[in-house]
Amino acid sequence: MPTTATNITWHQGAVTRPEREALVGQKGVTVWLTGLSASGKSTIASALEQHLLQHGVSSYRLDGDNVRFGLNSDLGFSERDRNENIRRIAEVSKLFADASLVSITSFISPYRGDREKARKLHQLNNIPFIEVFVDAPLEVVEARDPKGLYKKARAGEIKNFTGISAPYEAPETPELHLETQNLSVNECVQAVTDYLTKQQYISASIKPVA
Amino acid sequence: MPTTATNITWHQGAVTRPEREALVGQKGVTVWLTGLSASGKSTIASALEQHLLQHGVSSYRLDGDNVRFGLNSDLGFSERDRNENIRRIAEVSKLFADASLVSITSFISPYRGDREKARKLHQLNNIPFIEVFVDAPLEVVEARDPKGLYKKARAGEIKNFTGISAPYEAPETPELHLETQNLSVNECVQAVTDYLTKQQYISASIKPVA
Repeated sequence: MPTTATNITWHQGAVTRPEREALVGQKGVTVWLTGLSASGKSTIASALEQHLLQHGVSSYRLDGDNVRFGLNSDLGFSERDRNENIRRIAEVSKLFADASLVSITSFISPYRGDREKARKLHQLNNIPFIEVFVDAPLEVVEARDPKGLYKKARAGEIKNFTGISAPYEAPETPELHLETQNLSVNECVQAVTDYLTKQQYISASIKPVA
Repeated sequence: MPTTATNITWHQGAVTRPEREALVGQKGVTVWLTGLSASGKSTIASALEQHLLQHGVSSYRLDGDNVRFGLNSDLGFSERDRNENIRRIAEVSKLFADASLVSITSFISPYRGDREKARKLHQLNNIPFIEVFVDAPLEVVEARDPKGLYKKARAGEIKNFTGISAPYEAPETPELHLETQNLSVNECVQAVTDYLTKQQYISASIKPVA
């Protein structure tokens, strides 16, 4: 991996991931939600986090809006900054999964290449990466427009807005494809939970969404 | 907080930190180790992580060397890059503590100002920040020199090396001060564990280090 740091060596920590997973009793994994603004990513992510925690599965949600105020507060919305935004998020999500949590990321992440890099980073570290396409047509999300952002983007008040003035490259082979105009939030959460259970990343005893 | 992102709003997640801490059964906290290269930070961090996990306390270790290969692989060792290195680590450690883990950071973090920023970031988010000064005199760490770095720094082969050609600003009022030339690794781990227990961040039932 390229690095500008030269006087460093790799430390194998005293606790390996398999040891940690055995101690914590669950497998670390990244659930990567991608989709247009207002497609339902944050709602699904929050509901999923809540559902997992209530069933004893440790999870943590990295949110596009929240991370922007902290770790990535130095980044804007140019293509270069979006690339760096997703690169850092992929690294941090990998750390959370390495800590044996279900790491849920909720970002537009519009570029296929960035998502592929995130996937490869996880593969290199033997951490499962589950790409979830949170899909709603542009006319649907534009009608929802809970923050009035599409209106502003159409008016030219926001530049580089995904779906309007910047591209969204839809996943071609996501692990899950959720069409949110046809599914309830609970159905989406259940679909993700079913997938995690089927792959034996979390315990099969987890109950269906109420 | 300054940010170059303008079209974003703050999401309060469905799960609050107190709810998560109640579900997981422990309080999130950052244990921030600081000290010269070869002072014992990584050894103590690894042993602490292992001890906590074996007693059912979820923890995760962010290591200077390891993070350098991933999240911060774009950064070098200039003062500016060191500042950015520590800024990002503070943000990520805050996220781990927010996820209600004991987040253990093991970085030289030589600048007092950077550590103070890390502390303030945690205070702003009501997350405990425990600064641990891993202290060994320069002559001791230079005699240890497990990676031969001090020798290279003295020969001018490594520039900006803390303690030789770059400053180390010792903590003035750390929560814990561990003089590693006088303490065993187990005694250091016990000191941190005792502090965490006394402050009721982790359960009092945790057993002494064997």
